[in-house]
Formats: sequence, structure tokens, C-alpha cells
Amino acid sequence: MIDAYSWATPNGHKVHIMLEECGLPYRVHAVNIGAGDQFKPEFLRISPNNKIPAIVDSEGPDGKPISLFESGAILLYLASKTGRFLPEDVRGKYEALQWLMFQMGGVGPMLGQAHHFRIYAPEKVEYAINRYTNEAKRLYGVLDKRLAEHAYLAGDAYSIADIATFPWLRSWENQGVELSDYTHVKRWFDEIAARPAVQRGVEVLAKHRKPVDDKERDILFGATQYQRR
Amino acid sequence: MIDAYSWATPNGHKVHIMLEECGLPYRVHAVNIGAGDQFKPEFLRISPNNKIPAIVDSEGPDGKPISLFESGAILLYLASKTGRFLPEDVRGKYEALQWLMFQMGGVGPMLGQAHHFRIYAPEKVEYAINRYTNEAKRLYGVLDKRLAEHAYLAGDAYSIADIATFPWLRSWENQGVELSDYTHVKRWFDEIAARPAVQRGVEVLAKHRKPVDDKERDILFGATQYQRR
Ligand SMILES: N[C@@H](CCC(=O)N[C@@H](CS)C(=O)NCC(=O)O)C(=O)O
Ligand SMILES: N[C@@H](CCC(=O)N[C@@H](CS)C(=O)NCC(=O)O)C(=O)O
Repeated sequence: MIDAYSWATPNGHKVHIMLEECGLPYRVHAVNIGAGDQFKPEFLRISPNNKIPAIVDSEGPDGKPISLFESGAILLYLASKTGRFLPEDVRGKYEALQWLMFQMGGVGPMLGQAHHFRIYAPEKVEYAINRYTNEAKRLYGVLDKRLAEHAYLAGDAYSIADIATFPWLRSWENQGVELSDYTHVKRWFDEIAARPAVQRGVEVLAKHRKPVDDKERDILFGATQYQRR
Repeated sequence: MIDAYSWATPNGHKVHIMLEECGLPYRVHAVNIGAGDQFKPEFLRISPNNKIPAIVDSEGPDGKPISLFESGAILLYLASKTGRFLPEDVRGKYEALQWLMFQMGGVGPMLGQAHHFRIYAPEKVEYAINRYTNEAKRLYGVLDKRLAEHAYLAGDAYSIADIATFPWLRSWENQGVELSDYTHVKRWFDEIAARPAVQRGVEVLAKHRKPVDDKERDILFGATQYQRR
């Protein structure tokens, strides 16, 4: 049995979608990051970076429980556990790995900054809004060129690189991007959005999430974060 | 033979250090990102995200050349090619993978934003300076807790998780951090800095890099970036 500690955010949805795609039995535990659940000692023991998602698999590769944090590591683990969504040939595998890393190091953190400065920050900081909106457009441009030539990010087959990237592109409006400007991304996006497992995955915990209020803003973005260390 | 397309930055140094640690024969090609070399079509063919580092290995796993971008994917590739710096037991492997992902998704992008707003941005944006300085301190705190309990990020052995993280911590002063406040990080840092392969790695291309001027600032951070798409 897999226990997923998560919340209805893009990084959480990556894991929900993967679990649904693989048909693995799982239980989901809400970690309300707006209420500060990510700082509870029992959560920090499995996720020392105080971020969702994390999982505990009661049957790890050696039969004993294993816990994991960082969505990219969790996707690789589940792909290896099930033999799915990561090409088996070594060339295809590295195609998927580099686009997964592109999501982890670029798409995720930079679109996250766009969300922060465009939507959540208590001040409107024009320099930062422009910086991250431009970066969002650049990243969509990189994806569009790739998807002009390949059906999926890793090539011919749907993989964990797509599963990692898709949830971030659902909020294109919050990133100052017009999705339909990127024809190939749009084609890929619509196809993935239509997958039944994806539709189930993005609903996981969705009802728990409310708009961020001032108290939550402080927990998520205030000085609280580093004072807790 | 491995051709590395790179520059003397933290993400470049990860690859230089790994190549030196593994004793692999390589040639390094300067991609001057301040002069816009990352937008040249021949570079974009191997690194579609217009970023260093990228490598071409003339002898890929199937005997044919293979090219890779994203430092995290390159480190995994070189670890697999040489059988080094990634634990072989599955538990150790996932420890290393999650800390590698923590570097790729957290340490790299967030310390990069701290550098940007504290050093490179043409305006002093106080909100953003505070945000990323606080986040830098939080990240050092996470690393310190981990290194209080383990010799290295992945546990008992030096791995690609350390190789990925170390180059980013060399510029702690630019991140508003006092390295010696983090006793365990400092112990780990000093030990890694003393490794001969690391000392050779951080010198690669170092003489080519000059302080960023206004023209370079525009190429790196101006509207140029997304207009090129
Ligand atoms: N690189 C991490 C990022 C995870 C992350 O940013 N999680 C956010 C929600 S999407 C979070 O838990 N934030 C709470 C906090 O930072 O306190 C991953 O991919 O798992
Ligand atoms: N996630 C990427 C990040 C690479 C990166 O940010 N490279 C920077 C230098 S450290 C770069 O090439 N910047 C040039 C540009 O963005 O135009 C990786 O780990 O390889």
C-alpha cells in the first residue's frame, strides 16, 4: 500500500496522476500547507524540506517500507516499481530524464515564481512580475518547439516527463501566458487532459483547497518559513 | 570522448567536477552565456532550453553518440556509465535521487534567484531580496539538519547529490548566508572543497568568466531571452 502525503497543487498532482495511471492502490493524506501541516515533526521525518508531496510505500524494493520526498524522485520510483511511463531503452530513458529534470529545475520553480509574484505576493513588484512572466513565455516556447517535433516530451511515448509537466500548465492564465499561442503545447495539453487517469488525479484533494488568505500567506511566504528551522 | 559544452557557473561546475572525479577523458567547449552563445543554433540542437551544461558522448550506451542537457540528467548518465557516485543498493540509490532532486528543484533555482536579486538585477527590489535570502537560509537549514545526521547527503558515501549541491554553496556570501552558521554544512563543504578532483573541476573555464556588464545583463536577464523564441 502506498500512502501519499500531499495537497492539491501541481507538485501534488504529479504524484496523484502517476498513481492513477499505474493503477496502484493508495491512500491520500491531506497536508494542508496553508495551515502549516508541513512543519509537523511527523511530516518532516519523511519530507525534511517541509514540502509536499511525499510517499511511504509499505512494500519497498527490499520488502521493507520506504519513504520518499521530491516529486521527481517519487515519479522515478513509481516508474521503476511498475515498469511504466519511463522508456526501457537507454536512449529513450535519458530523453525522459532530461525533460523530467527540465520540469524539476525550470518549469516548476519558475512558473511557481510567476504564480507568487502575479497572484500571491502582498505587493505588486513589477520587475519580478515581468521577469517571471517572460520566463514563463520562454519556457512555453521551449516546450512548443519540442512538441512540434515529437508527440510527447520524451519522444513517441507518454512518460513521467509529461506527467511532471502537465499539472504546471493547467494554470497558464496565472502565469501570464495564452495557452493557445503555443499550438503544439495546446495539442499535447488537450490530449493529456482527456486521459481518464489524469482527470481522476487532478481531482484528488481538490475540494480541500481554498483560496489563500492572509494567515496562510504568512505561513507559506512569510518569515515563518525560515524562523522554524 | 566526452565533449562538454559549458561555462564556469555552478551548473557547469557540477559536470566538470563529475568528469574529474570519474577520470573520464573530456574536452570542454566554452559557451559564453554572457555573449549569447547559448542561442546559437548548433548549441540549441543539443540544449533546447538555451542553458549550459550539455554534453555529447561519442560512445553512448549503444555505441553511438548521445547528447544530453540538464545537469541532473548528465550526472545520472555519467554515474551509470562509470558505476560511480550513485549507490548501487536500491535504498541508497533513492536517497541520492531525492537529494539530487532537492538540488535541482530547490537549491539551484532558489539560490539562483538570490544571486539575481542580490547581485545582478539592475534594480534593488527589497521584497524579492528578502524572499530569496530567507529561502536561502531555509535551504541551508534543511541541509544542515541532514548533514548533522549523515556524512553526505545520500548517507555514508559521497554521491552525485553532493556533487550537484557543492558548487552552489561556494557563493554563500552572494546569497546573504554566513556559511559558518551552519556547522554541519561547513564541515561537509570543507571536506568536499579539499578533494583534488573538485579543485580541478572548479577551475575549468574559470579564467574565461568576467564580471557581468550591462550588455551581458541584457542578454542574460533582459527581454532578449524570450524574444528569441
Ligand atoms: N521540488 C519539490 C517542490 C515541492 C513544492 O514546492 N511543494 C509545495 C507545494 S506545490 C509545498 O509543499 N510548499 C509548502 C512550503 O513550502 O511550505 C518537488 O518537486 O516535490
Ligand atoms: N536546470 C538546469 C539549469 C542550467 C542553468 O541555469 N544554466 C545557466 C548557467 S548556470 C545558463 O546557461 N544560463 C543562460 C541562459 O539562461 O540564457 C541545469 O541544471 O542544467
